Amino acid sequence: MIPVRSLVGCIVVVVALPAHAVDYTLIAPDKPIQDWSIGNDQLGFHDGPPFKVSLRGLNGGRQEGSALIEIDTGAMQLTVVPTRGMNVLRAQAGALRLGWDSPVSEVVNPAFVNLESRGGLGWLEGFNELVARCGFEWVGHPGEDRGELLTLHGRASYLPARTVVLSIDDQPPHRISLKGVLSEQAFKKVDFQIDAELITEPGTTAFTLHDRLTNRSDQPAEYQVLYHSNFGAPLLGEGARFAMPAREVSPFNARAQQELANWQTFRGPTAGYGETVYNIYPLGDDSGQSLAVLHDKSAQRGVALAFNVKQLPVFSLWKNTDSQTTGYVAGLEPGTSFSYNRSLQRDLGLVPTIEARGTRDFVLHYRLLPSAAAVRTALQDITTLQNGHPAKVRQTPLAQER
Amino acid sequence: MIPVRSLVGCIVVVVALPAHAVDYTLIAPDKPIQDWSIGNDQLGFHDGPPFKVSLRGLNGGRQEGSALIEIDTGAMQLTVVPTRGMNVLRAQAGALRLGWDSPVSEVVNPAFVNLESRGGLGWLEGFNELVARCGFEWVGHPGEDRGELLTLHGRASYLPARTVVLSIDDQPPHRISLKGVLSEQAFKKVDFQIDAELITEPGTTAFTLHDRLTNRSDQPAEYQVLYHSNFGAPLLGEGARFAMPAREVSPFNARAQQELANWQTFRGPTAGYGETVYNIYPLGDDSGQSLAVLHDKSAQRGVALAFNVKQLPVFSLWKNTDSQTTGYVAGLEPGTSFSYNRSLQRDLGLVPTIEARGTRDFVLHYRLLPSAAAVRTALQDITTLQNGHPAKVRQTPLAQER
Amino acid sequence: MIPVRSLVGCIVVVVALPAHAVDYTLIAPDKPIQDWSIGNDQLGFHDGPPFKVSLRGLNGGRQEGSALIEIDTGAMQLTVVPTRGMNVLRAQAGALRLGWDSPVSEVVNPAFVNLESRGGLGWLEGFNELVARCGFEWVGHPGEDRGELLTLHGRASYLPARTVVLSIDDQPPHRISLKGVLSEQAFKKVDFQIDAELITEPGTTAFTLHDRLTNRSDQPAEYQVLYHSNFGAPLLGEGARFAMPAREVSPFNARAQQELANWQTFRGPTAGYGETVYNIYPLGDDSGQSLAVLHDKSAQRGVALAFNVKQLPVFSLWKNTDSQTTGYVAGLEPGTSFSYNRSLQRDLGLVPTIEARGTRDFVLHYRLLPSAAAVRTALQDITTLQNGHPAKVRQTPLAQER
Repeated sequence: MIPVRSLVGCIVVVVALPAHAVDYTLIAPDKPIQDWSIGNDQLGFHDGPPFKVSLRGLNGGRQEGSALIEIDTGAMQLTVVPTRGMNVLRAQAGALRLGWDSPVSEVVNPAFVNLESRGGLGWLEGFNELVARCGFEWVGHPGEDRGELLTLHGRASYLPARTVVLSIDDQPPHRISLKGVLSEQAFKKVDFQIDAELITEPGTTAFTLHDRLTNRSDQPAEYQVLYHSNFGAPLLGEGARFAMPAREVSPFNARAQQELANWQTFRGPTAGYGETVYNIYPLGDDSGQSLAVLHDKSAQRGVALAFNVKQLPVFSLWKNTDSQTTGYVAGLEPGTSFSYNRSLQRDLGLVPTIEARGTRDFVLHYRLLPSAAAVRTALQDITTLQNGHPAKVRQTPLAQER
Repeated sequence: MIPVRSLVGCIVVVVALPAHAVDYTLIAPDKPIQDWSIGNDQLGFHDGPPFKVSLRGLNGGRQEGSALIEIDTGAMQLTVVPTRGMNVLRAQAGALRLGWDSPVSEVVNPAFVNLESRGGLGWLEGFNELVARCGFEWVGHPGEDRGELLTLHGRASYLPARTVVLSIDDQPPHRISLKGVLSEQAFKKVDFQIDAELITEPGTTAFTLHDRLTNRSDQPAEYQVLYHSNFGAPLLGEGARFAMPAREVSPFNARAQQELANWQTFRGPTAGYGETVYNIYPLGDDSGQSLAVLHDKSAQRGVALAFNVKQLPVFSLWKNTDSQTTGYVAGLEPGTSFSYNRSLQRDLGLVPTIEARGTRDFVLHYRLLPSAAAVRTALQDITTLQNGHPAKVRQTPLAQER
Repeated sequence: MIPVRSLVGCIVVVVALPAHAVDYTLIAPDKPIQDWSIGNDQLGFHDGPPFKVSLRGLNGGRQEGSALIEIDTGAMQLTVVPTRGMNVLRAQAGALRLGWDSPVSEVVNPAFVNLESRGGLGWLEGFNELVARCGFEWVGHPGEDRGELLTLHGRASYLPARTVVLSIDDQPPHRISLKGVLSEQAFKKVDFQIDAELITEPGTTAFTLHDRLTNRSDQPAEYQVLYHSNFGAPLLGEGARFAMPAREVSPFNARAQQELANWQTFRGPTAGYGETVYNIYPLGDDSGQSLAVLHDKSAQRGVALAFNVKQLPVFSLWKNTDSQTTGYVAGLEPGTSFSYNRSLQRDLGLVPTIEARGTRDFVLHYRLLPSAAAVRTALQDITTLQNGHPAKVRQTPLAQER
């Protein structure tokens, strides 16, 4: 159980707050977005790896008004989009990239997108991130529910952060935290605040997302969340594999059912493939910690995504192994819910409620697996969690889309 | 009749134009929004109460691109939102606040809202003002009319002002006027211009709105307008009361019908209450001047809203005495129309037409009632206008929503 | 055949690229829109007519965030809107204006318009240009097609240019080229790039549009395009005439059918007229070059629009001779398609497909006809192309709108 305990330890470190940190307000009501940067040199930190954080605005096209925050840990360059739900656009570690090549080549300002367009698929006009937050009122495919058109995957990725604060711990290892505040508010309808934090450290090729959802209302509310975490080449390729400890796996729909036997392996880019999706009930350790791994065919490198099933009880594996140009990408998607329309998920018990003034925390840890040894260790952790009882493979979808 | 005549006099003063005024263009095609202010000191005015007017931009979240204009009369701080239909966000006079606490905590830039979302209730994503203009193509609940989805309360609150000009009279009492121009235009559909003016004076705790709607088209057009004037604590509270001279009162729907007996009194914050609405045909004096008053339980303080029934023949009383967090607020809403969908108001004769190149003026006077004496005087004015003939109480709603 | 050959020659000149040009990036991801200008003096060009190009941002109302690029050839002032699909707002040559007076008086930033509003007619809230690009996913009237609401005339006019580059040839005649890049992208749906170029020369009263559509996807895709070219007074007036070489003409609908006999002549401003539209299959010369002419009653002045039927096989004549205030305007609209909803145009063979990674070029040449002689020559060109075989006049519409 040691490997699993080490995962838990990792999360504990994340939640602990640094004693002394320098704060920089990057975005605020009285602070227009303008180019800015800070690094270890300016801070006088010479006791560890060099690092740098910078903010810049984007102009032209649907990028007008967008902003990017780049965190260079020295070992990995992380790009965050404060104007799109604090999404992580990409992470680059030398030649190894976490992220994918979407046909959407702009960092789209939400002001230019009508989420209701394209029959509720307007969300696709800006989708190109490594991590795209889905939620928090709902997730899933577009469709009517309780008299409203729910658009694809909710609004979180189309909420610009109201305030963004960067905190750098003044003690080694100079933990870096970037906190953005999202508001999902409508009179009589919803009053959610999401404190969206990204945490990393100089010298590392890993980062943690720690979101806190607060229902500011004095009425309970339904919510859903899904972390659409997307990987293309070089990790994804013909023969790449996915692994996670699972209680049950089932095909999302009839299309996925046809390829159920190979649900853990990926095709190379396949023009006209479209997508297959598998619904997974993951297993965690005693504290709920679970782990998903995507690695290349030779198991030389991969990525690990750790999360907690008490926070995010289900997981969608999105195999969009279409052509490179259309989008060759795998989605690792821990969530409260699958990707069916909300109207189909109540019967599955996957439309949770948050109580009046309640909070919910969601912690996800993304870690590069840079070597065969790192991949092997992660897969062993999964085997340990699976604990000798193979996942039940359910042949038919849990729900039927109209 | 003296009190009523004094009301009329007040309006007359407002309409009179100052002989000499200094003009400042705050927003214009060639003038980006930037922080700016002016006060009596800079103007060299030392013959009256101090005052100040300032403009500032807002950044971050859905506030990005919004602007606020603050007019401090010395006795009251008025905040106007030029980027949201020249709405009045709030008015603060010492500890006394006109306005309310909406769960919507941002001053939302219209660019970020799809009014058609939430089944036509997108308007609610930005609703937090003391005075929110509704209209001018239509007002009322969302629904189809003549092949279009009419969204809640029209677009006026989501029209940014094209130009904003501040005028300060160089003679005492140094009348302050803020004029914004709104355009509601679509080829073949509508060509409305709204000159939206706010007028106040140094030292006062009152302000006047004077809107002029112009139909620039050479075709007549339907129009509707409603001034959604919203008050929470401290004026609103358990036992607060509403009064106005009325010809007829009726419940908006079956829900309101249940509480018809108590239509003039307010509950304290009541979780799950939702709202009740009463439809009122107000009475005016010979020139049409009418008056609505909201005052606290002890009748120690209140607010008076004067308007003219020849301009705004009907009145909605919106009792949204839900919890503080959900929104504890009363709406005093003079209008051409009630809050039914436009399709239901034609039969009520409440969808007026404005002739080709015609204009319509709407003048509303908001005045703090800071003492028991002031409240008493205003209530006496109402009694005078009621003139001994009690309002007819109609038991059933005027229209049935689907 | 000389006149026709001269037209062809004109296009050839346009396509030829200058050997040496100075480039100026006006809009780019790292370049906020700001006031800028350049002219022949600054460039040290004294060997030809003076010229000037300038960029400026617009503020206030729905113009906030819009930009204008003005190209003054010395003989004509062209205004391009980079934030609205590189549309041409107007062209002014002394007292002669190409363009029209729309009730829409703002240069509307696409961020403020919901194209799905007004039953899919949201496009009309910003329509006021001389040339409005329609396409490139679809054109035509709003309506459902394959499960999506297609909004009026597609999105091209609501796509802000991502980058804009001005090139001025350093050799006489100092050809001026303005190239903007539009992206029409949605994951799994569309991946179009449009390189939209406007070309002119100092001293001329003509300009060329050369658009290149690229399907960046590895899947073929349907596309449609229509160049909505709009002319009001002084060219349009009572008795103004339209001419073009045509194989067939038919009324768009029953309304147009009533006035089929007079399809080539225009009424004066007629309140309540609305519009009539005629569908034309134009004739071209051996290389496909065709020509449309609009001229005033006395044939003293006009405008010629040259295009190629191999690129743009059909033509809509839009006779919107309503009142001056509502919009007195004629549209000359070469396109791949008519203005029916896309669902009606497949059967007409007017929904072409662009192959994976394919490109399509569209070249249009707009030329002022400043004299009776110029009008006469252009009409002779048309007669030559018609070649003695009169156009077939089809009495009934090609399609029936629901």
